[in-house]
Amino acid sequence: MATIPTDFQHWTSVLQQRIEAQLQAVLPSPELAPQRLHQAMRYAMLGGGKRVRPLLTFAAGEFSQADPDRAVIAACAVELIHAYSLVHDDLPCMDDDVLRRGKPACHVEFDEATALLVGDALQSLAFQLLAEYRVAEDAAIQIKMVRLLAAACGSRGMAGGQAIDLAAVSTHPTLAELEFMHIHKTGALIRAAVLLGAHCGSVLSDAWMEKLDHYAKCIGLAFQVIDDVLDAEATTATLGKTAGKDAVRDKPTYVSVLGIAEARKLANELRRAALTALDGHGECALRLRELADFILDRKF
Amino acid sequence: MATIPTDFQHWTSVLQQRIEAQLQAVLPSPELAPQRLHQAMRYAMLGGGKRVRPLLTFAAGEFSQADPDRAVIAACAVELIHAYSLVHDDLPCMDDDVLRRGKPACHVEFDEATALLVGDALQSLAFQLLAEYRVAEDAAIQIKMVRLLAAACGSRGMAGGQAIDLAAVSTHPTLAELEFMHIHKTGALIRAAVLLGAHCGSVLSDAWMEKLDHYAKCIGLAFQVIDDVLDAEATTATLGKTAGKDAVRDKPTYVSVLGIAEARKLANELRRAALTALDGHGECALRLRELADFILDRKF
Repeated sequence: MATIPTDFQHWTSVLQQRIEAQLQAVLPSPELAPQRLHQAMRYAMLGGGKRVRPLLTFAAGEFSQADPDRAVIAACAVELIHAYSLVHDDLPCMDDDVLRRGKPACHVEFDEATALLVGDALQSLAFQLLAEYRVAEDAAIQIKMVRLLAAACGSRGMAGGQAIDLAAVSTHPTLAELEFMHIHKTGALIRAAVLLGAHCGSVLSDAWMEKLDHYAKCIGLAFQVIDDVLDAEATTATLGKTAGKDAVRDKPTYVSVLGIAEARKLANELRRAALTALDGHGECALRLRELADFILDRKF
Repeated sequence: MATIPTDFQHWTSVLQQRIEAQLQAVLPSPELAPQRLHQAMRYAMLGGGKRVRPLLTFAAGEFSQADPDRAVIAACAVELIHAYSLVHDDLPCMDDDVLRRGKPACHVEFDEATALLVGDALQSLAFQLLAEYRVAEDAAIQIKMVRLLAAACGSRGMAGGQAIDLAAVSTHPTLAELEFMHIHKTGALIRAAVLLGAHCGSVLSDAWMEKLDHYAKCIGLAFQVIDDVLDAEATTATLGKTAGKDAVRDKPTYVSVLGIAEARKLANELRRAALTALDGHGECALRLRELADFILDRKF
Protein backbone atom coordinates (compact mmCIF):
# COMPACT_ATOMS: atom_id res chain seq x y z
CA MET A 1 0.00 0.00 0.00
CA ALA A 2 1.26 3.47 -0.87
CA THR A 3 2.09 5.72 2.06
CA ILE A 4 0.29 9.05 1.95
CA PRO A 5 2.98 11.78 1.76
CA THR A 6 2.99 14.39 4.53
CA ASP A 7 2.72 17.19 2.02
CA PHE A 8 -0.47 15.65 0.61
CA GLN A 9 -1.91 15.29 4.10
CA HIS A 10 -1.25 18.97 4.69
CA TRP A 11 -2.82 19.92 1.33
CA THR A 12 -5.87 17.82 2.16
CA SER A 13 -6.32 19.26 5.60
CA VAL A 14 -5.93 22.87 4.45
CA LEU A 15 -8.50 22.41 1.68
CA GLN A 16 -10.92 20.50 3.89
CA GLN A 17 -10.88 23.51 6.19
CA ARG A 18 -11.30 25.85 3.28
CA ILE A 19 -14.31 23.99 1.95
CA GLU A 20 -15.85 23.91 5.43
CA ALA A 21 -15.40 27.68 5.78
CA GLN A 22 -16.87 28.32 2.34
CA LEU A 23 -19.88 26.10 3.04
CA GLN A 24 -20.36 27.99 6.32
CA ALA A 25 -20.42 31.20 4.29
CA VAL A 26 -22.75 30.13 1.49
CA LEU A 27 -25.32 28.29 3.60
CA PRO A 28 -28.09 30.63 4.77
CA SER A 29 -27.70 31.76 8.37
CA PRO A 30 -29.57 29.63 10.92
CA GLU A 31 -31.13 32.85 12.21
CA LEU A 32 -32.77 33.53 8.87
CA ALA A 33 -36.36 32.30 8.31
CA PRO A 34 -37.20 29.48 7.93
CA GLN A 35 -34.79 28.84 10.80
CA ARG A 36 -35.42 25.14 11.29
CA LEU A 37 -34.80 24.39 7.62
CA HIS A 38 -31.61 26.43 7.63
CA GLN A 39 -30.42 24.72 10.82
CA ALA A 40 -31.11 21.34 9.23
CA MET A 41 -29.28 22.31 6.02
CA ARG A 42 -26.23 23.25 8.07
CA TYR A 43 -26.52 20.07 10.13
CA ALA A 44 -26.45 18.00 6.95
CA MET A 45 -23.54 19.90 5.40
CA LEU A 46 -21.12 20.96 8.09
CA GLY A 47 -18.60 19.26 10.36
CA GLY A 48 -18.27 15.92 8.65
CA GLY A 49 -17.45 13.99 5.56
CA LYS A 50 -14.16 13.27 3.88
CA ARG A 51 -14.86 15.89 1.21
CA VAL A 52 -13.42 13.59 -1.44
CA ARG A 53 -15.37 15.23 -4.27
CA PRO A 54 -14.29 18.77 -3.34
CA LEU A 55 -10.70 17.57 -3.12
CA LEU A 56 -11.01 16.16 -6.63
CA THR A 57 -12.38 19.51 -7.80
CA PHE A 58 -9.41 21.33 -6.26
CA ALA A 59 -6.95 18.83 -7.72
CA ALA A 60 -8.45 19.18 -11.21
CA GLY A 61 -8.40 22.95 -10.66
CA GLU A 62 -4.66 22.77 -10.00
CA PHE A 63 -4.34 20.75 -13.19
CA SER A 64 -5.84 23.64 -15.20
CA GLN A 65 -4.15 26.34 -13.09
CA ALA A 66 -7.46 27.54 -11.73
CA ASP A 67 -7.76 30.30 -9.15
CA PRO A 68 -8.60 28.45 -5.88
CA ASP A 69 -11.24 31.13 -5.21
CA ARG A 70 -13.12 29.76 -8.20
CA ALA A 71 -12.42 26.11 -7.53
CA VAL A 72 -13.76 26.36 -3.99
CA ILE A 73 -17.18 27.47 -5.27
CA ALA A 74 -17.35 24.62 -7.78
CA ALA A 75 -16.23 22.27 -5.00
CA CYS A 76 -19.04 23.54 -2.74
CA ALA A 77 -21.60 23.02 -5.51
CA VAL A 78 -20.52 19.41 -5.94
CA GLU A 79 -20.52 18.77 -2.19
CA LEU A 80 -24.02 20.31 -1.85
CA ILE A 81 -25.29 17.82 -4.43
CA HIS A 82 -23.52 14.95 -2.67
CA ALA A 83 -24.93 15.94 0.73
CA TYR A 84 -28.47 16.36 -0.63
CA SER A 85 -28.28 12.85 -2.07
CA LEU A 86 -27.18 11.43 1.30
CA VAL A 87 -30.05 13.17 3.13
CA HIS A 88 -32.60 11.79 0.67
CA ASP A 89 -30.96 8.33 0.54
CA ASP A 90 -31.20 7.97 4.30
CA LEU A 91 -34.99 8.61 4.33
CA PRO A 92 -37.22 5.72 5.44
CA CYS A 93 -38.66 5.26 1.94
CA MET A 94 -35.13 4.86 0.55
CA ASP A 95 -32.26 3.19 2.46
CA ASP A 96 -33.90 3.93 5.82
CA ASP A 97 -30.65 4.63 7.62
CA VAL A 98 -30.45 6.38 10.97
CA LEU A 99 -26.73 7.12 11.08
CA ARG A 100 -24.64 9.37 8.85
CA ARG A 101 -21.13 10.70 9.35
CA GLY A 102 -21.23 9.38 12.93
CA LYS A 103 -24.34 11.42 13.79
CA PRO A 104 -28.09 10.76 13.61
CA ALA A 105 -29.29 11.11 10.02
CA CYS A 106 -30.99 14.40 9.15
CA HIS A 107 -34.54 12.98 9.28
CA VAL A 108 -33.79 11.48 12.71
CA GLU A 109 -32.31 14.66 14.17
CA PHE A 110 -35.06 16.80 12.61
CA ASP A 111 -38.00 15.09 10.87
CA GLU A 112 -38.78 13.50 7.53
CA ALA A 113 -40.49 16.51 5.97
CA THR A 114 -37.59 18.77 6.94
CA ALA A 115 -35.05 16.29 5.57
CA LEU A 116 -36.94 16.13 2.28
CA LEU A 117 -36.87 19.93 2.00
CA VAL A 118 -33.22 20.05 3.07
CA GLY A 119 -32.30 17.86 0.11
CA ASP A 120 -34.43 19.90 -2.26
CA ALA A 121 -32.97 23.20 -1.09
CA LEU A 122 -29.36 21.95 -1.10
CA GLN A 123 -29.78 20.94 -4.73
CA SER A 124 -31.07 24.42 -5.65
CA LEU A 125 -28.24 26.05 -3.74
CA ALA A 126 -25.66 24.10 -5.74
CA PHE A 127 -26.91 25.59 -9.00
CA GLN A 128 -27.30 28.99 -7.42
CA LEU A 129 -23.60 29.00 -6.51
CA LEU A 130 -22.48 28.12 -10.03
CA ALA A 131 -24.52 31.07 -11.31
CA GLU A 132 -23.92 33.59 -8.54
CA TYR A 133 -20.13 33.48 -8.39
CA ARG A 134 -17.54 33.91 -11.08
CA VAL A 135 -16.30 30.33 -11.42
CA ALA A 136 -14.82 30.34 -14.92
CA GLU A 137 -13.18 32.53 -17.55
CA ASP A 138 -16.49 33.46 -19.11
CA ALA A 139 -20.25 32.99 -18.80
CA ALA A 140 -20.35 30.45 -21.64
CA ILE A 141 -18.09 28.12 -19.65
CA GLN A 142 -20.19 28.69 -16.54
CA ILE A 143 -23.29 27.64 -18.46
CA LYS A 144 -21.37 24.53 -19.55
CA MET A 145 -20.63 23.82 -15.89
CA VAL A 146 -24.31 24.16 -14.93
CA ARG A 147 -25.22 21.73 -17.71
CA LEU A 148 -22.53 19.30 -16.63
CA LEU A 149 -23.62 19.29 -12.99
CA ALA A 150 -27.33 19.07 -13.85
CA ALA A 151 -26.76 16.11 -16.16
CA ALA A 152 -24.58 14.43 -13.54
CA CYS A 153 -27.25 14.53 -10.87
CA GLY A 154 -30.39 13.92 -12.93
CA SER A 155 -32.21 10.79 -14.07
CA ARG A 156 -29.36 9.84 -16.41
CA GLY A 157 -26.85 10.42 -13.63
CA MET A 158 -26.96 10.15 -9.84
CA ALA A 159 -30.76 10.07 -9.32
CA GLY A 160 -31.04 7.47 -12.07
CA GLY A 161 -28.31 5.37 -10.43
CA GLN A 162 -30.23 5.53 -7.18
CA ALA A 163 -33.35 4.24 -8.97
CA ILE A 164 -31.36 1.36 -10.49
CA ASP A 165 -29.89 0.62 -7.06
CA LEU A 166 -33.36 0.40 -5.48
CA ALA A 167 -34.57 -1.92 -8.21
CA ALA A 168 -31.49 -4.14 -7.79
CA VAL A 169 -32.23 -5.18 -4.19
CA SER A 170 -32.45 -8.99 -3.98
CA THR A 171 -31.41 -9.41 -7.62
CA HIS A 172 -28.24 -11.00 -8.96
CA PRO A 173 -26.82 -8.58 -11.50
CA THR A 174 -23.87 -9.37 -13.71
CA LEU A 175 -20.65 -7.42 -13.24
CA ALA A 176 -21.61 -5.30 -16.27
CA GLU A 177 -25.01 -4.43 -14.73
CA LEU A 178 -23.37 -3.57 -11.43
CA GLU A 179 -20.93 -1.31 -13.25
CA PHE A 180 -23.78 0.40 -15.13
CA MET A 181 -25.49 1.11 -11.79
CA HIS A 182 -22.41 2.58 -10.17
CA ILE A 183 -21.35 4.62 -13.18
CA HIS A 184 -24.61 6.46 -12.58
CA LYS A 185 -25.00 6.36 -8.81
CA THR A 186 -21.48 7.35 -7.72
CA GLY A 187 -19.49 7.80 -10.88
CA ALA A 188 -21.46 10.62 -12.47
CA LEU A 189 -20.95 13.07 -9.63
CA ILE A 190 -17.27 12.17 -9.16
CA ARG A 191 -16.78 12.77 -12.86
CA ALA A 192 -18.54 16.13 -12.52
CA ALA A 193 -16.32 17.01 -9.55
CA VAL A 194 -13.20 16.55 -11.69
CA LEU A 195 -14.52 18.23 -14.85
CA LEU A 196 -15.96 21.21 -12.98
CA GLY A 197 -12.60 21.77 -11.31
CA ALA A 198 -10.86 21.66 -14.68
CA HIS A 199 -13.34 24.17 -16.15
CA CYS A 200 -12.46 26.71 -13.43
CA GLY A 201 -9.01 27.24 -14.91
CA SER A 202 -7.48 27.89 -18.30
CA VAL A 203 -9.19 26.13 -21.18
CA LEU A 204 -7.83 22.62 -21.69
CA SER A 205 -7.63 20.86 -25.05
CA ASP A 206 -10.34 18.34 -25.84
CA ALA A 207 -7.68 15.64 -25.67
CA TRP A 208 -6.76 16.58 -22.11
CA MET A 209 -10.38 16.88 -21.09
CA GLU A 210 -10.91 13.34 -22.36
CA LYS A 211 -7.95 12.05 -20.37
CA LEU A 212 -9.23 13.76 -17.25
CA ASP A 213 -12.63 12.29 -17.94
CA HIS A 214 -11.13 8.81 -18.20
CA TYR A 215 -9.24 9.35 -14.94
CA ALA A 216 -12.49 10.47 -13.29
CA LYS A 217 -14.49 7.49 -14.57
CA CYS A 218 -11.89 5.02 -13.29
CA ILE A 219 -11.59 6.74 -9.93
CA GLY A 220 -15.39 6.97 -9.58
CA LEU A 221 -15.82 3.27 -10.10
CA ALA A 222 -12.85 2.40 -7.87
CA PHE A 223 -14.37 4.58 -5.17
CA GLN A 224 -17.53 2.47 -5.21
CA VAL A 225 -15.67 -0.84 -5.28
CA ILE A 226 -13.73 0.21 -2.19
CA ASP A 227 -16.97 1.45 -0.58
CA ASP A 228 -18.43 -2.02 -0.99
CA VAL A 229 -15.29 -3.64 0.43
CA LEU A 230 -15.32 -1.29 3.42
CA ASP A 231 -19.01 -1.92 4.05
CA ALA A 232 -18.30 -5.66 4.14
CA GLU A 233 -15.15 -5.38 6.29
CA ALA A 234 -15.51 -2.40 8.57
CA THR A 235 -17.35 -1.79 11.79
CA THR A 236 -19.95 0.93 12.24
CA ALA A 237 -17.62 2.85 14.56
CA THR A 238 -14.81 3.26 12.02
CA LEU A 239 -17.18 3.82 9.11
CA GLY A 240 -19.34 6.55 10.73
CA LYS A 241 -22.36 5.01 9.07
CA THR A 242 -24.08 1.68 9.54
CA ALA A 243 -21.69 -1.06 8.40
CA GLY A 244 -22.68 -4.35 6.81
CA LYS A 245 -25.98 -2.92 5.66
CA ASP A 246 -25.52 -4.02 2.05
CA ALA A 247 -25.60 -7.67 3.09
CA VAL A 248 -28.52 -7.12 5.48
CA ARG A 249 -30.55 -5.41 2.74
CA ASP A 250 -29.51 -8.05 0.21
CA LYS A 251 -28.00 -5.42 -2.05
CA PRO A 252 -25.76 -6.63 -4.84
CA THR A 253 -22.25 -5.21 -4.42
CA TYR A 254 -18.81 -5.76 -5.89
CA VAL A 255 -18.14 -7.95 -2.86
CA SER A 256 -21.26 -10.06 -3.34
CA VAL A 257 -20.51 -10.47 -7.04
CA LEU A 258 -16.71 -10.82 -6.94
CA GLY A 259 -15.69 -11.54 -3.34
CA ILE A 260 -13.40 -9.25 -1.33
CA ALA A 261 -10.07 -10.28 -2.87
CA GLU A 262 -11.24 -9.92 -6.47
CA ALA A 263 -12.97 -6.64 -5.68
CA ARG A 264 -9.71 -5.22 -4.29
CA LYS A 265 -7.91 -6.45 -7.39
CA LEU A 266 -10.43 -4.70 -9.61
CA ALA A 267 -10.02 -1.47 -7.62
CA ASN A 268 -6.26 -1.62 -8.12
CA GLU A 269 -6.66 -2.17 -11.84
CA LEU A 270 -8.89 0.90 -11.98
CA ARG A 271 -6.28 2.90 -10.06
CA ARG A 272 -3.64 1.90 -12.58
CA ALA A 273 -5.91 2.91 -15.47
CA ALA A 274 -6.63 6.25 -13.80
CA LEU A 275 -2.92 6.97 -13.30
CA THR A 276 -2.07 5.94 -16.85
CA ALA A 277 -4.59 8.49 -18.16
CA LEU A 278 -2.53 11.21 -16.47
CA ASP A 279 0.79 10.10 -18.01
CA GLY A 280 2.66 12.92 -19.69
CA HIS A 281 1.62 15.55 -17.20
CA GLY A 282 4.00 16.03 -14.32
CA GLU A 283 3.58 18.38 -11.41
CA CYS A 284 0.09 19.61 -12.44
CA ALA A 285 -1.39 16.17 -12.00
CA LEU A 286 0.36 15.45 -8.68
CA ARG A 287 -2.71 15.90 -6.50
CA LEU A 288 -4.93 13.92 -8.85
CA ARG A 289 -2.44 11.04 -8.60
CA GLU A 290 -2.23 11.28 -4.85
CA LEU A 291 -6.02 11.38 -4.58
CA ALA A 292 -6.23 8.14 -6.50
CA ASP A 293 -4.15 6.52 -3.75
CA PHE A 294 -6.10 8.34 -1.04
CA ILE A 295 -9.41 6.97 -2.39
CA LEU A 296 -8.07 3.46 -2.87
CA ASP A 297 -6.24 3.12 0.43
CA ARG A 298 -8.81 4.78 2.70
CA LYS A 299 -10.08 2.94 5.75
CA PHE A 300 -13.48 4.64 6.03
CA MET B 1 -66.45 38.99 -13.59
CA ALA B 2 -64.46 39.65 -16.74
CA THR B 3 -65.29 37.41 -19.68
CA ILE B 4 -62.26 35.64 -21.10
CA PRO B 5 -61.90 36.78 -24.74
CA THR B 6 -61.99 34.06 -27.41
CA ASP B 7 -58.64 35.14 -28.76
CA PHE B 8 -57.06 34.63 -25.32
CA GLN B 9 -58.64 31.20 -25.04
CA HIS B 10 -57.10 30.31 -28.38
CA TRP B 11 -53.70 31.68 -27.35
CA THR B 12 -53.87 29.68 -24.12
CA SER B 13 -54.83 26.46 -25.80
CA VAL B 14 -52.15 26.74 -28.50
CA LEU B 15 -49.44 27.38 -25.93
CA GLN B 16 -50.65 24.67 -23.57
CA GLN B 17 -50.24 22.25 -26.46
CA ARG B 18 -46.85 23.68 -27.27
CA ILE B 19 -45.60 23.29 -23.71
CA GLU B 20 -46.95 19.73 -23.59
CA ALA B 21 -45.11 18.86 -26.81
CA GLN B 22 -41.88 20.44 -25.58
CA LEU B 23 -42.08 18.60 -22.25
CA GLN B 24 -42.65 15.37 -24.20
CA ALA B 25 -39.46 16.14 -26.11
CA VAL B 26 -37.21 17.10 -23.20
CA LEU B 27 -38.26 14.36 -20.78
CA PRO B 28 -36.10 11.25 -21.17
CA SER B 29 -37.77 8.48 -23.16
CA PRO B 30 -39.63 5.90 -21.05
CA GLU B 31 -37.64 3.23 -22.88
CA LEU B 32 -34.36 4.62 -21.59
CA ALA B 33 -32.90 3.15 -18.35
CA PRO B 34 -33.95 3.58 -15.60
CA GLN B 35 -37.32 3.01 -17.28
CA ARG B 36 -39.53 3.12 -14.21
CA LEU B 37 -38.08 6.45 -13.10
CA HIS B 38 -38.53 7.91 -16.57
CA GLN B 39 -42.09 6.62 -16.77
CA ALA B 40 -42.84 8.19 -13.40
CA MET B 41 -41.28 11.52 -14.45
CA ARG B 42 -43.52 11.59 -17.51
CA TYR B 43 -46.54 10.57 -15.42
CA ALA B 44 -45.92 13.52 -13.10
CA MET B 45 -45.35 16.02 -15.91
CA LEU B 46 -47.59 15.19 -18.84
CA GLY B 47 -51.29 15.40 -19.61
CA GLY B 48 -52.47 17.66 -16.85
CA GLY B 49 -52.20 20.95 -15.10
CA LYS B 50 -53.32 24.42 -16.11
CA ARG B 51 -49.75 25.39 -17.05
CA VAL B 52 -50.33 28.82 -15.49
CA ARG B 53 -46.63 29.41 -14.88
CA PRO B 54 -45.59 28.52 -18.44
CA LEU B 55 -48.32 30.83 -19.75
CA LEU B 56 -46.90 33.63 -17.61
CA THR B 57 -43.46 32.91 -19.05
CA PHE B 58 -44.82 33.11 -22.60
CA ALA B 59 -46.75 36.31 -21.80
CA ALA B 60 -43.66 37.96 -20.33
CA GLY B 61 -41.73 36.71 -23.35
CA GLU B 62 -44.19 38.52 -25.64
CA PHE B 63 -43.65 41.59 -23.48
CA SER B 64 -39.91 41.54 -24.30
CA GLN B 65 -40.43 40.34 -27.89
CA ALA B 66 -38.79 37.01 -27.15
CA ASP B 67 -38.53 34.24 -29.70
CA PRO B 68 -41.16 31.68 -28.59
CA ASP B 69 -38.58 28.93 -29.21
CA ARG B 70 -36.62 30.39 -26.32
CA ALA B 71 -39.60 31.15 -24.12
CA VAL B 72 -40.88 27.59 -24.36
CA ILE B 73 -37.65 26.24 -22.84
CA ALA B 74 -37.80 28.70 -19.96
CA ALA B 75 -41.47 27.80 -19.53
CA CYS B 76 -40.59 24.09 -19.35
CA ALA B 77 -37.91 24.77 -16.76
CA VAL B 78 -40.41 26.59 -14.55
CA GLU B 79 -43.04 23.88 -14.98
CA LEU B 80 -40.51 21.16 -14.14
CA ILE B 81 -39.79 22.91 -10.85
CA HIS B 82 -43.51 23.32 -10.16
CA ALA B 83 -44.23 19.65 -10.91
CA TYR B 84 -41.32 18.44 -8.77
CA SER B 85 -42.67 20.46 -5.85
CA LEU B 86 -46.13 18.89 -6.26
CA VAL B 87 -44.68 15.37 -6.31
CA HIS B 88 -42.71 16.00 -3.12
CA ASP B 89 -45.58 17.90 -1.44
CA ASP B 90 -47.93 14.97 -1.96
CA LEU B 91 -45.60 12.50 -0.19
CA PRO B 92 -46.85 10.98 3.08
CA CYS B 93 -44.27 12.88 5.16
CA MET B 94 -45.54 16.18 3.70
CA ASP B 95 -49.19 16.84 2.75
CA ASP B 96 -49.89 13.12 2.35
CA ASP B 97 -52.25 13.55 -0.57
CA VAL B 98 -53.30 10.72 -2.85
CA LEU B 99 -54.87 12.72 -5.67
CA ARG B 100 -53.25 15.17 -8.08
CA ARG B 101 -54.59 16.60 -11.35
CA GLY B 102 -57.47 14.12 -11.16
CA LYS B 103 -55.12 11.13 -11.05
CA PRO B 104 -53.45 9.14 -8.26
CA ALA B 105 -50.47 11.07 -6.91
CA CYS B 106 -47.06 9.92 -8.18
CA HIS B 107 -46.14 8.01 -5.00
CA VAL B 108 -49.51 6.21 -5.16
CA GLU B 109 -49.22 5.27 -8.83
CA PHE B 110 -45.56 4.27 -8.41
CA ASP B 111 -44.03 4.22 -4.92
CA GLU B 112 -42.56 6.65 -2.41
CA ALA B 113 -38.93 6.09 -3.29
CA THR B 114 -39.64 6.59 -6.98
CA ALA B 115 -41.64 9.75 -6.29
CA LEU B 116 -38.77 11.13 -4.23
CA LEU B 117 -36.33 10.50 -7.08
CA VAL B 118 -38.82 11.88 -9.64
CA GLY B 119 -38.85 15.20 -7.79
CA ASP B 120 -35.07 15.24 -7.47
CA ALA B 121 -34.54 14.47 -11.15
CA LEU B 122 -37.16 16.95 -12.36
CA GLN B 123 -35.37 19.69 -10.45
CA SER B 124 -32.04 18.81 -12.08
CA LEU B 125 -33.68 18.69 -15.50
CA ALA B 126 -35.01 22.24 -15.07
CA PHE B 127 -31.49 23.60 -14.65
CA GLN B 128 -30.16 21.38 -17.40
CA LEU B 129 -32.64 22.92 -19.85
CA LEU B 130 -31.63 26.48 -18.98
CA ALA B 131 -28.03 25.52 -19.68
CA GLU B 132 -28.47 23.20 -22.65
CA TYR B 133 -30.60 25.42 -24.89
CA ARG B 134 -30.06 28.94 -26.11
CA VAL B 135 -32.68 30.77 -24.05
CA ALA B 136 -31.36 34.34 -24.08
CA GLU B 137 -29.29 36.81 -26.07
CA ASP B 138 -26.06 35.78 -24.40
CA ALA B 139 -24.60 33.39 -21.87
CA ALA B 140 -24.38 36.08 -19.18
CA ILE B 141 -28.16 36.47 -19.25
CA GLN B 142 -28.58 32.70 -19.19
CA ILE B 143 -26.46 32.53 -16.05
CA LYS B 144 -28.69 35.25 -14.57
CA MET B 145 -31.70 33.06 -15.38
CA VAL B 146 -30.15 30.03 -13.66
CA ARG B 147 -29.48 32.16 -10.59
CA LEU B 148 -33.00 33.53 -10.62
CA LEU B 149 -34.63 30.10 -10.86
CA ALA B 150 -32.32 28.57 -8.25
CA ALA B 151 -33.01 31.34 -5.76
CA ALA B 152 -36.76 31.06 -6.45
CA CYS B 153 -36.90 27.39 -5.58
CA GLY B 154 -34.40 27.21 -2.72
CA SER B 155 -34.67 27.69 1.03
CA ARG B 156 -35.31 31.40 0.62
CA GLY B 157 -37.96 30.69 -2.00
CA MET B 158 -40.32 27.81 -2.68
CA ALA B 159 -38.71 25.12 -0.47
CA GLY B 160 -38.50 27.66 2.36
CA GLY B 161 -42.17 28.54 1.91
CA GLN B 162 -43.01 24.88 2.16
CA ALA B 163 -41.10 24.64 5.44
CA ILE B 164 -42.97 27.67 6.82
CA ASP B 165 -46.24 26.13 5.64
CA LEU B 166 -45.52 22.87 7.51
CA ALA B 167 -44.65 24.74 10.67
CA ALA B 168 -47.85 26.79 10.41
CA VAL B 169 -50.25 23.83 10.76
CA SER B 170 -52.55 24.42 13.75
CA THR B 171 -51.18 27.92 14.35
CA HIS B 172 -52.99 31.23 13.96
CA PRO B 173 -50.74 33.47 11.90
CA THR B 174 -51.42 37.13 11.28
CA LEU B 175 -52.19 38.27 7.75
CA ALA B 176 -48.60 39.50 7.46
CA GLU B 177 -47.23 36.09 8.46
CA LEU B 178 -49.54 34.36 6.00
CA GLU B 179 -48.35 36.70 3.29
CA PHE B 180 -44.71 36.00 4.15
CA MET B 181 -45.39 32.27 3.81
CA HIS B 182 -47.07 32.57 0.44
CA ILE B 183 -44.58 35.02 -1.03
CA HIS B 184 -42.13 32.16 -0.60
CA LYS B 185 -44.27 29.09 -1.22
CA THR B 186 -46.14 30.16 -4.35
CA GLY B 187 -45.01 33.69 -5.12
CA ALA B 188 -41.32 33.04 -5.68
CA LEU B 189 -41.81 30.61 -8.57
CA ILE B 190 -44.54 32.68 -10.20
CA ARG B 191 -42.20 35.64 -10.04
CA ALA B 192 -39.46 33.56 -11.61
CA ALA B 193 -41.88 32.44 -14.35
CA VAL B 194 -42.49 36.07 -15.35
CA LEU B 195 -38.90 37.27 -15.05
CA LEU B 196 -37.45 34.29 -16.92
CA GLY B 197 -39.86 34.93 -19.77
CA ALA B 198 -38.81 38.57 -19.89
CA HIS B 199 -35.11 37.59 -19.96
CA CYS B 200 -35.67 35.47 -23.09
CA GLY B 201 -36.28 38.58 -25.19
CA SER B 202 -34.64 41.92 -25.78
CA VAL B 203 -33.07 43.47 -22.70
CA LEU B 204 -35.60 45.51 -20.71
CA SER B 205 -34.75 48.60 -18.68
CA ASP B 206 -34.39 48.14 -14.92
CA ALA B 207 -37.52 50.25 -14.50
CA TRP B 208 -39.57 47.89 -16.66
CA MET B 209 -38.10 44.85 -14.95
CA GLU B 210 -39.21 46.31 -11.63
CA LYS B 211 -42.72 46.90 -12.92
CA LEU B 212 -42.90 43.34 -14.23
CA ASP B 213 -41.60 42.15 -10.89
CA HIS B 214 -44.34 44.06 -9.09
CA TYR B 215 -46.96 42.60 -11.45
CA ALA B 216 -45.58 39.12 -10.74
CA LYS B 217 -45.57 39.57 -6.97
CA CYS B 218 -49.20 40.74 -6.96
CA ILE B 219 -50.33 37.95 -9.27
CA GLY B 220 -48.42 35.36 -7.26
CA LEU B 221 -50.13 36.34 -4.05
CA ALA B 222 -53.54 36.65 -5.72
CA PHE B 223 -53.04 33.16 -7.14
CA GLN B 224 -52.64 31.75 -3.64
CA VAL B 225 -55.58 33.71 -2.20
CA ILE B 226 -57.81 32.27 -4.94
CA ASP B 227 -56.33 28.82 -4.34
CA ASP B 228 -57.42 29.04 -0.71
CA VAL B 229 -60.90 30.23 -1.72
CA LEU B 230 -61.25 27.39 -4.23
CA ASP B 231 -60.09 24.83 -1.68
CA ALA B 232 -62.78 26.06 0.71
CA GLU B 233 -65.54 26.27 -1.91
CA ALA B 234 -64.94 23.62 -4.53
CA THR B 235 -65.54 19.92 -4.67
CA THR B 236 -62.80 17.38 -5.31
CA ALA B 237 -64.25 16.59 -8.74
CA THR B 238 -63.96 20.13 -10.11
CA LEU B 239 -60.62 20.78 -8.40
CA GLY B 240 -58.84 17.61 -9.58
CA LYS B 241 -57.18 17.38 -6.19
CA THR B 242 -58.56 16.73 -2.73
CA ALA B 243 -60.79 19.70 -1.80
CA GLY B 244 -61.32 21.06 1.70
CA LYS B 245 -58.03 19.60 2.87
CA ASP B 246 -56.77 22.87 4.31
CA ALA B 247 -59.58 22.88 6.88
CA VAL B 248 -59.16 19.17 7.62
CA ARG B 249 -55.43 19.61 8.21
CA ASP B 250 -56.05 22.79 10.22
CA LYS B 251 -53.88 24.81 7.88
CA PRO B 252 -54.12 28.57 8.15
CA THR B 253 -55.30 30.06 4.84
CA TYR B 254 -56.56 33.39 3.57
CA VAL B 255 -60.06 31.99 4.09
CA SER B 256 -59.42 30.95 7.68
CA VAL B 257 -57.84 34.32 8.46
CA LEU B 258 -60.11 36.64 6.43
CA GLY B 259 -63.22 34.69 5.46
CA ILE B 260 -64.23 34.01 1.84
CA ALA B 261 -65.67 37.45 1.00
CA GLU B 262 -62.68 39.40 2.33
CA ALA B 263 -60.26 36.98 0.69
CA ARG B 264 -61.94 37.56 -2.70
CA LYS B 265 -61.77 41.31 -2.09
CA LEU B 266 -58.05 41.06 -1.35
CA ALA B 267 -57.51 39.05 -4.53
CA ASN B 268 -59.24 41.74 -6.57
CA GLU B 269 -57.14 44.47 -4.99
CA LEU B 270 -54.04 42.50 -5.94
CA ARG B 271 -55.35 42.16 -9.50
CA ARG B 272 -55.79 45.93 -9.72
CA ALA B 273 -52.28 46.52 -8.40
CA ALA B 274 -50.89 44.03 -10.92
CA LEU B 275 -52.66 45.72 -13.82
CA THR B 276 -51.61 49.19 -12.66
CA ALA B 277 -47.97 48.07 -12.77
CA LEU B 278 -48.41 47.40 -16.49
CA ASP B 279 -49.87 50.84 -17.27
CA GLY B 280 -48.14 52.61 -20.13
CA HIS B 281 -47.49 49.45 -22.11
CA GLY B 282 -50.17 48.61 -24.64
CA GLU B 283 -50.29 45.57 -26.88
CA CYS B 284 -47.10 43.98 -25.46
CA ALA B 285 -48.69 43.55 -22.06
CA LEU B 286 -52.02 42.25 -23.37
CA ARG B 287 -51.46 38.60 -22.42
CA LEU B 288 -50.09 39.52 -19.00
CA ARG B 289 -53.27 41.52 -18.36
CA GLU B 290 -55.50 38.72 -19.59
CA LEU B 291 -53.62 36.20 -17.47
CA ALA B 292 -54.34 38.29 -14.40
CA ASP B 293 -58.06 37.83 -15.11
CA PHE B 294 -57.56 34.16 -15.97
CA ILE B 295 -55.85 33.51 -12.63
CA LEU B 296 -58.39 35.48 -10.65
CA ASP B 297 -61.53 34.15 -12.29
CA ARG B 298 -60.54 30.49 -12.58
CA LYS B 299 -62.80 27.83 -11.16
CA PHE B 300 -60.15 25.17 -10.49
